[in-house]
Amino acid sequence: MVDNSKNFAETIDGSATILNVAQIVADLRNVRVSSLEDRKRRNKPPKLPSRKVLAEIVEGIAAALFPNRLGLPDLTEDGIDYFVGHTLDTALRELTAQVRLELDFSASLDLATPHISKDSAAAEKHTEQQIAEARKVVKKFAETLPSIRILLDSDILAAYEGDPAARSIDEVLVCYPGITAITHYRIAHVLHKLGMPLIARIISEIAHSSTGIDIHPGAQIHERFFIDHGTGVVIGETTIIGKNVRVYQAVTLGAKRFPTDESGMLIKGNERHPIVEDDVVIYAGATILGRITIGRASAIGGNVWLTHSVPPESNISQAQMRANQSQ
Amino acid sequence: MVDNSKNFAETIDGSATILNVAQIVADLRNVRVSSLEDRKRRNKPPKLPSRKVLAEIVEGIAAALFPNRLGLPDLTEDGIDYFVGHTLDTALRELTAQVRLELDFSASLDLATPHISKDSAAAEKHTEQQIAEARKVVKKFAETLPSIRILLDSDILAAYEGDPAARSIDEVLVCYPGITAITHYRIAHVLHKLGMPLIARIISEIAHSSTGIDIHPGAQIHERFFIDHGTGVVIGETTIIGKNVRVYQAVTLGAKRFPTDESGMLIKGNERHPIVEDDVVIYAGATILGRITIGRASAIGGNVWLTHSVPPESNISQAQMRANQSQ
Amino acid sequence: MVDNSKNFAETIDGSATILNVAQIVADLRNVRVSSLEDRKRRNKPPKLPSRKVLAEIVEGIAAALFPNRLGLPDLTEDGIDYFVGHTLDTALRELTAQVRLELDFSASLDLATPHISKDSAAAEKHTEQQIAEARKVVKKFAETLPSIRILLDSDILAAYEGDPAARSIDEVLVCYPGITAITHYRIAHVLHKLGMPLIARIISEIAHSSTGIDIHPGAQIHERFFIDHGTGVVIGETTIIGKNVRVYQAVTLGAKRFPTDESGMLIKGNERHPIVEDDVVIYAGATILGRITIGRASAIGGNVWLTHSVPPESNISQAQMRANQSQ
Amino acid sequence: MVDNSKNFAETIDGSATILNVAQIVADLRNVRVSSLEDRKRRNKPPKLPSRKVLAEIVEGIAAALFPNRLGLPDLTEDGIDYFVGHTLDTALRELTAQVRLELDFSASLDLATPHISKDSAAAEKHTEQQIAEARKVVKKFAETLPSIRILLDSDILAAYEGDPAARSIDEVLVCYPGITAITHYRIAHVLHKLGMPLIARIISEIAHSSTGIDIHPGAQIHERFFIDHGTGVVIGETTIIGKNVRVYQAVTLGAKRFPTDESGMLIKGNERHPIVEDDVVIYAGATILGRITIGRASAIGGNVWLTHSVPPESNISQAQMRANQSQ
Amino acid sequence: MVDNSKNFAETIDGSATILNVAQIVADLRNVRVSSLEDRKRRNKPPKLPSRKVLAEIVEGIAAALFPNRLGLPDLTEDGIDYFVGHTLDTALRELTAQVRLELDFSASLDLATPHISKDSAAAEKHTEQQIAEARKVVKKFAETLPSIRILLDSDILAAYEGDPAARSIDEVLVCYPGITAITHYRIAHVLHKLGMPLIARIISEIAHSSTGIDIHPGAQIHERFFIDHGTGVVIGETTIIGKNVRVYQAVTLGAKRFPTDESGMLIKGNERHPIVEDDVVIYAGATILGRITIGRASAIGGNVWLTHSVPPESNISQAQMRANQSQ
Amino acid sequence: MVDNSKNFAETIDGSATILNVAQIVADLRNVRVSSLEDRKRRNKPPKLPSRKVLAEIVEGIAAALFPNRLGLPDLTEDGIDYFVGHTLDTALRELTAQVRLELDFSASLDLATPHISKDSAAAEKHTEQQIAEARKVVKKFAETLPSIRILLDSDILAAYEGDPAARSIDEVLVCYPGITAITHYRIAHVLHKLGMPLIARIISEIAHSSTGIDIHPGAQIHERFFIDHGTGVVIGETTIIGKNVRVYQAVTLGAKRFPTDESGMLIKGNERHPIVEDDVVIYAGATILGRITIGRASAIGGNVWLTHSVPPESNISQAQMRANQSQ
Repeated sequence: MVDNSKNFAETIDGSATILNVAQIVADLRNVRVSSLEDRKRRNKPPKLPSRKVLAEIVEGIAAALFPNRLGLPDLTEDGIDYFVGHTLDTALRELTAQVRLELDFSASLDLATPHISKDSAAAEKHTEQQIAEARKVVKKFAETLPSIRILLDSDILAAYEGDPAARSIDEVLVCYPGITAITHYRIAHVLHKLGMPLIARIISEIAHSSTGIDIHPGAQIHERFFIDHGTGVVIGETTIIGKNVRVYQAVTLGAKRFPTDESGMLIKGNERHPIVEDDVVIYAGATILGRITIGRASAIGGNVWLTHSVPPESNISQAQMRANQSQ
Repeated sequence: MVDNSKNFAETIDGSATILNVAQIVADLRNVRVSSLEDRKRRNKPPKLPSRKVLAEIVEGIAAALFPNRLGLPDLTEDGIDYFVGHTLDTALRELTAQVRLELDFSASLDLATPHISKDSAAAEKHTEQQIAEARKVVKKFAETLPSIRILLDSDILAAYEGDPAARSIDEVLVCYPGITAITHYRIAHVLHKLGMPLIARIISEIAHSSTGIDIHPGAQIHERFFIDHGTGVVIGETTIIGKNVRVYQAVTLGAKRFPTDESGMLIKGNERHPIVEDDVVIYAGATILGRITIGRASAIGGNVWLTHSVPPESNISQAQMRANQSQ
Repeated sequence: MVDNSKNFAETIDGSATILNVAQIVADLRNVRVSSLEDRKRRNKPPKLPSRKVLAEIVEGIAAALFPNRLGLPDLTEDGIDYFVGHTLDTALRELTAQVRLELDFSASLDLATPHISKDSAAAEKHTEQQIAEARKVVKKFAETLPSIRILLDSDILAAYEGDPAARSIDEVLVCYPGITAITHYRIAHVLHKLGMPLIARIISEIAHSSTGIDIHPGAQIHERFFIDHGTGVVIGETTIIGKNVRVYQAVTLGAKRFPTDESGMLIKGNERHPIVEDDVVIYAGATILGRITIGRASAIGGNVWLTHSVPPESNISQAQMRANQSQ
Repeated sequence: MVDNSKNFAETIDGSATILNVAQIVADLRNVRVSSLEDRKRRNKPPKLPSRKVLAEIVEGIAAALFPNRLGLPDLTEDGIDYFVGHTLDTALRELTAQVRLELDFSASLDLATPHISKDSAAAEKHTEQQIAEARKVVKKFAETLPSIRILLDSDILAAYEGDPAARSIDEVLVCYPGITAITHYRIAHVLHKLGMPLIARIISEIAHSSTGIDIHPGAQIHERFFIDHGTGVVIGETTIIGKNVRVYQAVTLGAKRFPTDESGMLIKGNERHPIVEDDVVIYAGATILGRITIGRASAIGGNVWLTHSVPPESNISQAQMRANQSQ
Repeated sequence: MVDNSKNFAETIDGSATILNVAQIVADLRNVRVSSLEDRKRRNKPPKLPSRKVLAEIVEGIAAALFPNRLGLPDLTEDGIDYFVGHTLDTALRELTAQVRLELDFSASLDLATPHISKDSAAAEKHTEQQIAEARKVVKKFAETLPSIRILLDSDILAAYEGDPAARSIDEVLVCYPGITAITHYRIAHVLHKLGMPLIARIISEIAHSSTGIDIHPGAQIHERFFIDHGTGVVIGETTIIGKNVRVYQAVTLGAKRFPTDESGMLIKGNERHPIVEDDVVIYAGATILGRITIGRASAIGGNVWLTHSVPPESNISQAQMRANQSQ
Repeated sequence: MVDNSKNFAETIDGSATILNVAQIVADLRNVRVSSLEDRKRRNKPPKLPSRKVLAEIVEGIAAALFPNRLGLPDLTEDGIDYFVGHTLDTALRELTAQVRLELDFSASLDLATPHISKDSAAAEKHTEQQIAEARKVVKKFAETLPSIRILLDSDILAAYEGDPAARSIDEVLVCYPGITAITHYRIAHVLHKLGMPLIARIISEIAHSSTGIDIHPGAQIHERFFIDHGTGVVIGETTIIGKNVRVYQAVTLGAKRFPTDESGMLIKGNERHPIVEDDVVIYAGATILGRITIGRASAIGGNVWLTHSVPPESNISQAQMRANQSQ
């Protein structure tokens, strides 16, 4: 291990006080150019979907799903459909533009289809196809919105029933960070399935930042899902969660640790995260790793470290685990 | 466990690309109506207190409490009381409006007092009473502000003395997420006691989102409380914390796990969270559950899982716990 | 333990509804004055660096480092250097003002150099020296920017290679909270070394709030550092991390617990956090405490509690730890 | 004529430099109180309609009238009615609140109906009636919107046909200050007729400020009205303007000068402004005063000063006027 | 003259108070559709250049021209070119987009080139050509900026020398509305000559609204032009103004009045506005009409009405004009 | 007269489409440098007072003067003095900074006191004196605020009594552009007298832009001044206006025209604008020039051109003027 912080130290000991912006701009340009060269990227990199715009889109969709609570507070019966229609129309139009950016970006990653074709006619054709593709994706997404609302209603009801402190369904919707995280997840999941992994990931990171709950958009989560407190929850890409599952803060549903290869990289695999069946409760700090199955109606205790399947109606505690290990 | 994600799949395979906003608006209306019917809610739901407005109110109150540090940086001696008075006057006026919303919302939850009375004279009377009630609540809240400032001074001093890295009281106030969380808690706690649980909860979630520290506004926390790092801390509703307590990241002061009933719900009970006496230190990741008492001047080690009371001056570590379990 | 919440109760029982803002303003003034007196602070406290302004400065610096991705999306080859130069020039000018505030604040903490000198000529001289000093600090900081970019490139590459889900370097830069945290850390670290601990701390708290990752700016972290998921990670002030290290959520690299003295304060010491050598992986929830060394290419399992050094290529799991303890 | 600027001079010669804000605040309070007493106003003055809010309302209504040009540029056929409906719903809801303010303010001006009744039941009844009244006004206003659009179409067409430089109807709508002024006038005029003179006046002053065209909302202006350039145009309260009239900059359609009474006040009278029949053109700087009639298809030359009626098809120039005067 | 205000009156007498937004939306749609049909416009109208965006572009260009005064106040020598380069790069990029909108809009006005071609290949080709054309226009515009700066320097110097109250060139640039108007004019004029009459017109209306000075972008105005006070000044499309001309408020340089034809329209003609030679002064309220020539170094008095040429060094006053007319 | 628009034409005919921003930046720098050299200005020009900041300051002062109408609409008796005190404290602090900028700028105009002294000790002394001077100016200004309020009350009352359409004093304050202009004037006038002509001028131009009324801050205007409609009114620097004067749109109170010297500049002189005695009315479009006196209680008719004094109680009309001229 070499301490390259010496570079800093030397730099810092220099004595003049005249700031040479031009020199730094030139140095940064050199670093940038050589960084692109390392990646064999000489074309101008395509524009990515925007986190800021996607945050507004999700806010618009959430307002259209729950207009009285997350939209405008004073909506009349007369005005509510206009609000929903206009908010949706705006959000979906903006989403179409973001989908085009992801399509364009994905194409640039594909070596067989160079990003900037020399054949201008082909390029135009590509543009037309891309617009049609983006519209198709957004249309399919829009058509799932009523079923997303039904799922979210079930999640909110589960939270209301599952938390003794909750006095009304409305306060659950407005206060609970778990609901914020699940709303973002349910929207991101549909987009992930429609082939928009980058947009989906950005949406889930927006919720991660404000709630501390990190749900990969690829996870499959069924109705009546409730996360209480939530900070530190991590749910991996191939996780499957049944109906009526409850999870507390700092729970990890992750991939098992494989021995690292010489470069220290994880070996990529499919279906590497747990299956959690219906009616399971997982208490705070539990860590469940690998493609194992937690049987129906089991309860996993706080801080439990679990890497093997358990049958339905199991009741796993830390003490139990250690007892088993000692045997 | 049925995979209802098939619905998505089918929807997604549709082929047309014309987006029918009107159809989706109609579908969402149907879902909304049947969702309200399920909850036997046919009246227009009352407006809830606003998270955005409450965030501004808390910012205003904090600025009035610490005008030099959280208010305007250039305040003169001459101008400081005008700043405090105006900021407070504005924040309290806005708070009065939010309190009225919560009173109205609470009334709507009470089946014996239907939200929209047919008797208009009674309704008007109700309005007058409600305004008086809101003013009373805010007046009482305002009168506690000097004592909140004294408590916060003690918290800041505890952080300054407890963190070897802190060089001044001012930087503690400005930098430490624990102080942000406690400030929100102390304000929310008074409002909770004054019968405003929803406003109190929203305020505590504002701090939860920015700090990862989740303190229920119902908890009772005495002076000189210090949370270091803080991400993942959870402090439950009936917790009682004495003077001069120090807590690190990812500590849970929670309810014990009861065997789940058939629907998987927690059994609601009073006084289900720990009592932490004066001068206790709880290290990172410790989980303390149930109405147990941590005796004065005890130290609870990192990652300890504790569900029974310990006498004063105990020194509990993971190793010790396991040793005890093995005996 | 005395329940001082009674004060609240009494206050709350008062009956009048007329809000006396003037009385509260006066009470708050009294509290403020006596609070300052307790700290022997009678001078007007100096202005602190501003979190809001520093957030903008960091955003500007990040945009100058990665103009295509974090700057403006439509920059042409022609316009990119103007963007970088102008953004940098603005950010560095604002940083100079913040550095002056910290220098002024530091001086006020030093009892030997009273903040407001009666000797006006000396005061003026002090001002001149301070401006020169601030410029020198910012100049040195600016000169490290190209090497910061190189380090960040290595971090991004490590994340891309270490996460099977990452499809491109660009999405790592835009999506991953770990990259946000490291970018803030690398900027804050240089400022910390240049004698600006308060500015550095504020910058690291900005990242802490949005990512849940808390890296002390004093830590030394070498190239190719990757934090996955990240919520709850804490890295202490004297930690040293080698090249190509990977860390998961809720990992603590902290100080060992010393027996508390009678006032419950930590005893301050140097080099109290771990040394993590090159190529180490630390899985979720592991807690590593004290000035110990994790040898090269070791893997530390999830939830492991480690307080002693381990040799290179160790593979430490929870089970193993317990087994060792039982021996 | 006494020079009261001496007061300033004396004040200004004072020598101390300590700013006594408290003294100025007290002095301003005294001035305020005695000013209210002079007007026999001791009650708290009612809130007035807000210029800022009315500007937004007019912008919303204009966007609903011309959604493609003054609304959102990217509206699809699918989204346009949602945009119009939502924009209108929002603007009309806000307008209802403003109308209530004007009703309340008008009531406070009426001595027979004291603003704050001691009889609370009567006060409540008043509130209910006022809400119903406000809704009625806004409903009537809303129903005129299609006819306002038809009138504005005729005005725009007249401008397009009347200005040799105009290349398209769209640019007339977007560029011409005369169209801005007429749009505000046509909206304000309906509100004026519905008994909202204060709101109407504020709306016409918004246009006056941005265009220099001052049309009293009481004026009656028929279709195809075109104002070119416009700065300095003044059209008085009882003016009647027929179809297809064209007016240039600095034209005044005002009240004749009456000999001043001893207090220098204008004697109030009805129908004191001109009647301009169909197809008249009035060139720049012409001043037309009093309840006179400009006959059909007349042309009034630049800078002409006219205080008597002229028959149809007159062609009046400055030279002619002087020639007549000399005769 | 028919009073169509009766429609309003009838509408207003309706009695229900339930607002039917849907009906009004439908009525507005009908009006919109029939309005488009009247104009034989069935295609979706193309998007127009945006006044708001053009205001920002002009602000950016003005800041690039005068970076110390209209740009950022704290620019260092080091940073000034970066500021100018970045501001210009941004403004010109946005201008390119606006130019494309005008090109598209102009094409839609041309019947021979239908806006939406059925031949997609041709449409694409059109797009490519249009982008190239827009770039060419903006490049040419950009290249004139140094000469625009030189002209504006001469205008500012003329104002400074011509106004006894001006104490410095800097305050002229910052305070005088005449300078604001001329800056907009000089930018708009170049764009007008480059075939962008709509953008040019919008820019000149921005200045008209804030200054009351209405200069057509087609006018030709040479160096050292000074407008004092300015409200009400109108300068027509084919006006030619020499060097060192001074003009006061309410001066019109307009087209002569032609006898109106039966439809009341002006007959369009070229070169219908005055030629004002070098060194002329025109006092407040003077009206000069038609393609006449005001000879070098003449002075035209206040309120003079002039429709014939005058030789060099003329000195025209109102009294004189009347004297001539009486002869 | 040479047509220098040829330069444009040539530039425009160039054919390449690659935009060379760097070349334009360099050209603009050259123009800038030679422009500064022409003015013998080589030092960095001092920063000017900011129009945007001054607009906020005036808004703050107006809100402090009329807190119920121009401040916050919901102020309670309890909160109003805090609002006034805080608003004033903020506005005056910002004004002090602007006054320092003007003092600095004025010093830079004075050749005997070079702006950037080489003697640093002298420079520091200068800074201290300047701060004291700025505070003194603002203190004096602040002390006149109560008398400004009294004057404005008289102006508002005059408008209310003078306009038959005004129904209440409140609507006059909120609606009438004349009141906006006079408020700005009365504030600017005090600052002008205190030696801040540039700040005063900027404030009066803010009102000029929004109202079309141009009152020089040097003019002396006594109580009860009313401007109706107002667009195009110009009141010159040395004008003196008595009590209870009424003025309509497009009135000029200007300097007489002097024969121009060879360079076309006005000869500067003192007391070159009219004296208007008490109780005078001046109708729309009247032009009154030179240091003449309009006697008490006179009425000056619309469009009258007056360059000689008239005795008290004169009644001047256009017709009369011409009749006199013919005699």
